[in-house]
Amino acid sequence: MTTGLYIGRFQPVHNGHVLSIKSILGQVDDLAIIVGSALNSYSTENPFTAGERIKMLRDAFVEAEIPLSKVIVLAVPDTLPPNYHSIYVSQVETYCPHFDVVFTHNPLVKTLFQQAGYEVREHKTFDRDRYCGTTIRDRMVKGKGWKDLVPPSVAKYIEELDGVRRLKQLSGSDRPDS
Amino acid sequence: MTTGLYIGRFQPVHNGHVLSIKSILGQVDDLAIIVGSALNSYSTENPFTAGERIKMLRDAFVEAEIPLSKVIVLAVPDTLPPNYHSIYVSQVETYCPHFDVVFTHNPLVKTLFQQAGYEVREHKTFDRDRYCGTTIRDRMVKGKGWKDLVPPSVAKYIEELDGVRRLKQLSGSDRPDS
Amino acid sequence: MTTGLYIGRFQPVHNGHVLSIKSILGQVDDLAIIVGSALNSYSTENPFTAGERIKMLRDAFVEAEIPLSKVIVLAVPDTLPPNYHSIYVSQVETYCPHFDVVFTHNPLVKTLFQQAGYEVREHKTFDRDRYCGTTIRDRMVKGKGWKDLVPPSVAKYIEELDGVRRLKQLSGSDRPDS
Amino acid sequence: MTTGLYIGRFQPVHNGHVLSIKSILGQVDDLAIIVGSALNSYSTENPFTAGERIKMLRDAFVEAEIPLSKVIVLAVPDTLPPNYHSIYVSQVETYCPHFDVVFTHNPLVKTLFQQAGYEVREHKTFDRDRYCGTTIRDRMVKGKGWKDLVPPSVAKYIEELDGVRRLKQLSGSDRPDS
Amino acid sequence: MTTGLYIGRFQPVHNGHVLSIKSILGQVDDLAIIVGSALNSYSTENPFTAGERIKMLRDAFVEAEIPLSKVIVLAVPDTLPPNYHSIYVSQVETYCPHFDVVFTHNPLVKTLFQQAGYEVREHKTFDRDRYCGTTIRDRMVKGKGWKDLVPPSVAKYIEELDGVRRLKQLSGSDRPDS
Amino acid sequence: MTTGLYIGRFQPVHNGHVLSIKSILGQVDDLAIIVGSALNSYSTENPFTAGERIKMLRDAFVEAEIPLSKVIVLAVPDTLPPNYHSIYVSQVETYCPHFDVVFTHNPLVKTLFQQAGYEVREHKTFDRDRYCGTTIRDRMVKGKGWKDLVPPSVAKYIEELDGVRRLKQLSGSDRPDS
Repeated sequence: MTTGLYIGRFQPVHNGHVLSIKSILGQVDDLAIIVGSALNSYSTENPFTAGERIKMLRDAFVEAEIPLSKVIVLAVPDTLPPNYHSIYVSQVETYCPHFDVVFTHNPLVKTLFQQAGYEVREHKTFDRDRYCGTTIRDRMVKGKGWKDLVPPSVAKYIEELDGVRRLKQLSGSDRPDS
Repeated sequence: MTTGLYIGRFQPVHNGHVLSIKSILGQVDDLAIIVGSALNSYSTENPFTAGERIKMLRDAFVEAEIPLSKVIVLAVPDTLPPNYHSIYVSQVETYCPHFDVVFTHNPLVKTLFQQAGYEVREHKTFDRDRYCGTTIRDRMVKGKGWKDLVPPSVAKYIEELDGVRRLKQLSGSDRPDS
Repeated sequence: MTTGLYIGRFQPVHNGHVLSIKSILGQVDDLAIIVGSALNSYSTENPFTAGERIKMLRDAFVEAEIPLSKVIVLAVPDTLPPNYHSIYVSQVETYCPHFDVVFTHNPLVKTLFQQAGYEVREHKTFDRDRYCGTTIRDRMVKGKGWKDLVPPSVAKYIEELDGVRRLKQLSGSDRPDS
Repeated sequence: MTTGLYIGRFQPVHNGHVLSIKSILGQVDDLAIIVGSALNSYSTENPFTAGERIKMLRDAFVEAEIPLSKVIVLAVPDTLPPNYHSIYVSQVETYCPHFDVVFTHNPLVKTLFQQAGYEVREHKTFDRDRYCGTTIRDRMVKGKGWKDLVPPSVAKYIEELDGVRRLKQLSGSDRPDS
Repeated sequence: MTTGLYIGRFQPVHNGHVLSIKSILGQVDDLAIIVGSALNSYSTENPFTAGERIKMLRDAFVEAEIPLSKVIVLAVPDTLPPNYHSIYVSQVETYCPHFDVVFTHNPLVKTLFQQAGYEVREHKTFDRDRYCGTTIRDRMVKGKGWKDLVPPSVAKYIEELDGVRRLKQLSGSDRPDS
Repeated sequence: MTTGLYIGRFQPVHNGHVLSIKSILGQVDDLAIIVGSALNSYSTENPFTAGERIKMLRDAFVEAEIPLSKVIVLAVPDTLPPNYHSIYVSQVETYCPHFDVVFTHNPLVKTLFQQAGYEVREHKTFDRDRYCGTTIRDRMVKGKGWKDLVPPSVAKYIEELDGVRRLKQLSGSDRPDS
């Protein structure tokens, strides 16, 4: 049995995440999904809390018919002090049940897990220009359409949280002058 | 819809946990389960890592036919600095999706969540003298029987981890002199 | 009785702070004043220690005939880890006696305290182009006049501290080459 | 002009604190008062938050006719990591305006400030068996009288906070079984 | 070429340390020596700073004719948060050049390095009842002889530091009442 | 006897460091060398761990015939929280045996140690345009020559570590697209 590891910030969860996770689940038996930078929230880069991002993932999995028995969602904070990269693998191993193979495109994550002896694979990505957290947050702030870029359940939840207003307020864009 | 919150250290998961969680699920629609003191492990009080405890809970839920869609398992570290109790509720709110009612017998946890305005209920407990982490770890160290106190899947997993040997070694009891 | 909360970095205390505080004291019975980023000092952005900034505020209050019985000055560090914004309100509540209404123009602070259920008001500001910490520190480094922008007692104290020399040295501008 | 430094935990503020502070104010021009272990609260040893303890001190000073212009109250957390004693003086110097002489009976505090070159004096104490935080918290938990051991304003404030109930609940003594 | 790792607190360096290190140097080509709990000092358990303990080791090595080219002395703090044991090996690997085999009698250290795949050996010890930090600190506090238990250079350095007075003062034993 | 203090990040150790250290050793009896930002590694600014940098320094000293008895190499992390500059001198004093004079060109380090009463001297530098960590890391990433800028033993060790590949991978430059 093979367990994969997939790391993201999920600010917010978007269709690219769901498609990648589905694709990875074709290669492994189950998948640990790390909600990274778990303690960062209420900023323009990281508007949502770990709890909110976990809720988004679970709703999206139900919607996409990804069985909850195949995925384990885990919120992991950045190392302390910040950038104490050399302990990051050890920190993930603390929070996470055993895993065998790491799926990432991030150069730092790839370097650290390879150095620790893990197999690292680059997973398939889907329309990365559109399905991209930075793009989506930017569209939210500018009042452009974004709902078709995320799962319907995630769009609904962000509306319940009044998440676009939160992001606009954090970016100062809800006021004519700042 | 009502979401409950249940906090434990799960060192290790035992039958009392499973029975309490089943009982609480009769009162709420879903339940967030906090694996507390998430960063403590490899000590006589906290032998297992957060990842190992999460694995125990998931296996136990499958075995006990508790649907994974009704429970969210979340590993939450103690506050930093230690004993910075006044931010604990805020920390749990960060890691956890929205919850309505807290189930606990712990005086500190009860005080903190009540102070923050949450409803706190004491859940039903089951044979607390036997189904008790301290008792079970003590039996493991002393070489007494413990497997009937935990779900079969948990007993099996602890054996895979060679967990009793780990605990004995940590307590110094594997050597005639220390 | 109504208690206000006012948050600043006070690097250094300037006339705008004193005028705003006087204005706010017309709306509340007493005012808790948070010296934010309390542990940051000896940088070009934050040249003065918390203790130095507290001294500036107290001297300025005496000079401006603001009664010390109406103001409580409190030094509060940034959250740890940095940017753990979701616990910031809880951290302020730990350091501060009870307060009712928050006075701020900062989008993050406003968002966080509103989310926690506090009333947030924008206080009156005074000549923000001139009475502005960034401007004043910039003038200090460039050797331009700055003393008329701060209370006389603050100007005197900064001279005692040799504060302009400290700031120039930190910014590297006391040497022809660096 | 001479500034003194006085360090306490003030759990809670009692008559011994007020008498000592009055006595010290006969020797110095003004006095910085450190509310130590600022982040510890909601425990049997440290039931009250920093903000609550600051409020107690201010009320007690007004009541005892100690002028607020002579005292500066400062909340200072323990060092991080805990017991990183060798930076403690430096941490106090960060939070506190300049001081000249330290008043303490605590062997660790005395050793650290002497090592850093400060003059350390032992201040007069008053009926230390009765005016003692440990004694007072113990009396609160056991339902014995304690109000005559603290300033009337402090007794009143602790009642407003329902502080005795908090302390009893934290110590588990509000329940027949635990 | 084989590099060993040896971990101690060295409060203070004593003859047992020097004898063990000499013995280990018979088995390896060079030896990394970790001054553990590096940030703990000015307590009865840990009276000396990391810098002072490093000085003791270097002086002792010169005196015992242990070549400095064979030993690397490294001060490593405890993990943060405290007891975050699962990252300890990773932390040591950060501070330390490559090592092959770990020499320890400590059950926790042994468990952690074995779990991480290192060979762990128990080194020879020498008269552990007398050459023991706890015993030596206890003798210092009680005014009993201790100098013959440590290398002469260490005894001399502790005198220069007035270390016995520091330890007595920290333990409260320099005063008739406390 | 005079002990100097020299602080660097040594990412990596280069000929300028060795020449400066030799020059400083003409002015002092021995020299404590701080490997700063000890916990930063696996980034484009700080590719090497503390342990790796310590190894580089020791090898370079042997090669340059700098006696190990004259130099003490100490890895010191940045303060926590980051930028808590006012305790930095105290932190260095914790990790380091006694020192008398600080050699630095860094404006912040100079300011902090002068403020604490230390003598600060600017040491001689050598061809700072070429012997410069930023330049060397930049040349490594771009595939330009760099080995003549560092001691031969350091070049050899970086090759053993496959350090250039690590740095390229961290900077994303090992892939045609990223």
